[in-house]
Amino acid sequence: MLQNITLTKVKIVTEETTEPKTAEKKRNDENVIYVGHKPPMSYVLAIITQFQSSGSEEVIIKARGRAISTAVDSAEIVRNRFMKDAKLKDIQIGTESVTNEEGRTSNVSSIEIILTNKHKSK
Amino acid sequence: MLQNITLTKVKIVTEETTEPKTAEKKRNDENVIYVGHKPPMSYVLAIITQFQSSGSEEVIIKARGRAISTAVDSAEIVRNRFMKDAKLKDIQIGTESVTNEEGRTSNVSSIEIILTNKHKSK
Repeated sequence: MLQNITLTKVKIVTEETTEPKTAEKKRNDENVIYVGHKPPMSYVLAIITQFQSSGSEEVIIKARGRAISTAVDSAEIVRNRFMKDAKLKDIQIGTESVTNEEGRTSNVSSIEIILTNKHKSK
Repeated sequence: MLQNITLTKVKIVTEETTEPKTAEKKRNDENVIYVGHKPPMSYVLAIITQFQSSGSEEVIIKARGRAISTAVDSAEIVRNRFMKDAKLKDIQIGTESVTNEEGRTSNVSSIEIILTNKHKSK
């Protein structure tokens, strides 16, 4: 007889982010691209792959601190060069508290850019 | 005999900016803060001064390229620390074509953050 094993995974996120309201329902970790310090083209590729191979209607581009400008660059390159029918659904900015190893907290700005490709569903 | 030498200085600005639609009527150069490479606090001061001494109901924060993250920082500092009743009215991103001295054009991302302080009018 088979028994169900219940895995309880509790994730405590201590973020003071101003959470976006519009894309809440569509949110899962799958369609989020986190932008860091690589060249914009790396993220452009990741975004396009997310749209095309995973069939996402929406891709959320997230970045913090200095990477914010790279996130904007990536979104703009996707929109202007590769997917001319992609639209900017929403842009949110916020502040997150980041705690470093010494336990000191500092605030860092964040951005979330939601790109949508509604033509796909037609 | 002297001849007039005509110096013709033609400045061609080729901008492909996606112009914001919402704040078009309120737009004038007065309430625009251009963010560059100074520390965010310089711009925070400029934004607050614009709201308080000039009595603007809206302040438009503009930046290009690497300064985009500083623009987000400045807006967030104003909103979270100094003017808790200031609201984010709109955020626009776009791409501008910049021509350097050699005549070469390159694209640069831009951001426009519109902060509003509607309580003022009460």
